[in-house]
Amino acid sequence: MSPSATARPSLGDPPQLSPDRLLPSKSLPNTTNGTTTPDLDASLLRFTPTTTPRPVPLPNSPEVASQSTCTDHMITSAWTAHAGWSAPHLQPYAPLTLSPTASVLHYSTSCFEGLKAYRGHDGRLRLFRPDRNCARMLASAARVTLPAFDPAELEKLIKALVRVEGPKWVPPARPGAFIYIRPTLIATHPALGMQPPKEALLFIIACFLPSLDDPRALPTPAPTPTPTPTKPPAATGLKLLASPPTATRAWPTGFGASKIGANYGPSLPQHSHAQSRGYDQVLWLFGPDHLVTEAGASNFFVVWRARPERGGRVEMVTAALDMGLILAGVTRGCVLELARARLGGEGVAVVERAFGMREVVEAVEEGRVVEAFAAGTAGRDLDIPVPGAGGYAARIKAWLGDIMFGRVEHEWGVVVDEDIEEEEETGGA
Amino acid sequence: MSPSATARPSLGDPPQLSPDRLLPSKSLPNTTNGTTTPDLDASLLRFTPTTTPRPVPLPNSPEVASQSTCTDHMITSAWTAHAGWSAPHLQPYAPLTLSPTASVLHYSTSCFEGLKAYRGHDGRLRLFRPDRNCARMLASAARVTLPAFDPAELEKLIKALVRVEGPKWVPPARPGAFIYIRPTLIATHPALGMQPPKEALLFIIACFLPSLDDPRALPTPAPTPTPTPTKPPAATGLKLLASPPTATRAWPTGFGASKIGANYGPSLPQHSHAQSRGYDQVLWLFGPDHLVTEAGASNFFVVWRARPERGGRVEMVTAALDMGLILAGVTRGCVLELARARLGGEGVAVVERAFGMREVVEAVEEGRVVEAFAAGTAGRDLDIPVPGAGGYAARIKAWLGDIMFGRVEHEWGVVVDEDIEEEEETGGA
Repeated sequence: MSPSATARPSLGDPPQLSPDRLLPSKSLPNTTNGTTTPDLDASLLRFTPTTTPRPVPLPNSPEVASQSTCTDHMITSAWTAHAGWSAPHLQPYAPLTLSPTASVLHYSTSCFEGLKAYRGHDGRLRLFRPDRNCARMLASAARVTLPAFDPAELEKLIKALVRVEGPKWVPPARPGAFIYIRPTLIATHPALGMQPPKEALLFIIACFLPSLDDPRALPTPAPTPTPTPTKPPAATGLKLLASPPTATRAWPTGFGASKIGANYGPSLPQHSHAQSRGYDQVLWLFGPDHLVTEAGASNFFVVWRARPERGGRVEMVTAALDMGLILAGVTRGCVLELARARLGGEGVAVVERAFGMREVVEAVEEGRVVEAFAAGTAGRDLDIPVPGAGGYAARIKAWLGDIMFGRVEHEWGVVVDEDIEEEEETGGA
Repeated sequence: MSPSATARPSLGDPPQLSPDRLLPSKSLPNTTNGTTTPDLDASLLRFTPTTTPRPVPLPNSPEVASQSTCTDHMITSAWTAHAGWSAPHLQPYAPLTLSPTASVLHYSTSCFEGLKAYRGHDGRLRLFRPDRNCARMLASAARVTLPAFDPAELEKLIKALVRVEGPKWVPPARPGAFIYIRPTLIATHPALGMQPPKEALLFIIACFLPSLDDPRALPTPAPTPTPTPTKPPAATGLKLLASPPTATRAWPTGFGASKIGANYGPSLPQHSHAQSRGYDQVLWLFGPDHLVTEAGASNFFVVWRARPERGGRVEMVTAALDMGLILAGVTRGCVLELARARLGGEGVAVVERAFGMREVVEAVEEGRVVEAFAAGTAGRDLDIPVPGAGGYAARIKAWLGDIMFGRVEHEWGVVVDEDIEEEEETGGA
């Protein structure tokens, strides 16, 4: 453990904490429910530092593996239909108190986001496209009639939490480390009637997740529910078990594209079944054509050579968004953008379209699969299968890592200023 | 308000409270997660009476309308994968404390039940087929990898809560009154990783819901998404707005048949839209044939005369369970059983099958619809449309009411012994 790992954080003087260093109070009203109430407003953030700082867990320790270790603070803002959003509060991490009738406990009125704060090799702390997460959270909230908010204010709050927690929990002495930020919005309205909630709570916590960035091997789409039985390819890493025809994660005109709680609990039986059989994740298929949708809670990509009669080009394929079956992953979007910009010149065609397991199985049998990988934020950013190093996924992963960890300057890597120098002057490190 | 409405409850001596008066400690183990841990065991119930009793709300008061007024006590039992179910605790109603990382807040790992305790016209308190609710809750729990339990023990706990709360909250002086019992099971496991929870909490609360047992009028399936535009029939009561083709509540091989949180939050936008347009509930349709599934969170029945060329018989039709699109409602099952047993002799055919809006619209246009109604527990037991009184639904509703309120003895009406006499002796009333 580095000396700074358990050092008391230097948090500065509470009244001076001002996200993005200040801004006048927001005047934009929120018109949720047709009334004009105060919007979420990061400039009103109050700060109550913890008096019982916690120890920083060691990398790969049991505390990290538990995925339950959070940092010293969290941000909360309560909303009511009557009064709008309360002044956000950066406060000691603490349990929540909910009425037994709170909507979220009964009716799955919740949504969340997941993004990481990366300690760069240049010593600076970065978020990766946080505007994408904040915009998506607004859309997810609407899907379960949770209140609207200005996503730019949510982004400021995320930065405020990262700014306070970064120096201690992802210290400059640990380049390559990250913490996982989980903004969550839940309906706290204490009433059993089925109705859009009139009370809600936004909270933002920062937790440790294991780093799973080891190279992993070819996904194993087996057993497949396709009419053509096939023996699965040998796998040495990430193993995916195709969902059976008796289990459907999401459906068109449903809510599979929203990051709401309702997409997760009901997928756990298949997830548990897959893990009990030695697989890592479920490869979720849809419909009679066994369309490939998501791998676990990540997006799935396959790179193959088209058949000679179709030109034989190299294609990087992933499910399209138009059916509403998959989450529009932030990493997914970046993979597509980078592949189009940087691999097109090498003749790689990037394709978003519906494709079924039959196509995947045929490509495997005909030796046309180049690689396959899953892309997401929780746990790992990009799972790289065999052939791994040197492949397209490895190159994209390196490009993403360069941005996340500051080896290159890029608009997707958003630096969070932490006053590191000031800390070193006042608190030592 | 009757004098007993705000009287302090006479609860008897805590150590003597013993559900179903009693039973040796259960020896059946629970084998959730492959280990043998203590099962839910009502015989271990501890009782801590409240020291701050609450006032009983007046019928149709704002406190009742809020659907947030609960009684003095609740029952809790915590579960961990390691230790199994804890001794249940009948304790003062109080907020719950949850970790911000609790699974239920993020992943919709929750299920619940809803049933009523009815104060009969004979002064006795009854539950209506509670075994059905308890068995369904066990099935719902499995659907989101919540722990298993002996449903007979859950039923004993429900009775224990009702036994304590009945005399005060649904006093014998108010025959025809009811309280709504909400057993709820949530995953409290504090970890952000997607996994079957290793910690959960069962809680049982009793709340007031408005009595909505007024006769209501013909459901209004309008606007319909059928190819044949039709003008909606005049409606003076329960109005249903057919869901549009852009919104699907549930899917075959999904989880629409489980009473889990995930089925509710995502349906709120359509519910809210319907109410903003003056409708009471959404009539949820499915697929290209606009199959009729649920009305709000209730089951939907239509009674029509078949066309003359099909024999012209009277049919009571409701969606079948086999597609997994609807909840197997307890009231639904009773309506079917009663109708088969008591209306068959009158030539009414009771039919469970898939039927689409086109059939409903055609029947309306051809003047063949006799009545339509929704059946459920929350809020109302059976919505009776025009022609209402004298119709089949009104008769079934009366039969159900006779059982619920003790006008007839029937195995579905389960009497809960409250020691009313003893109370009157010791506490007065």
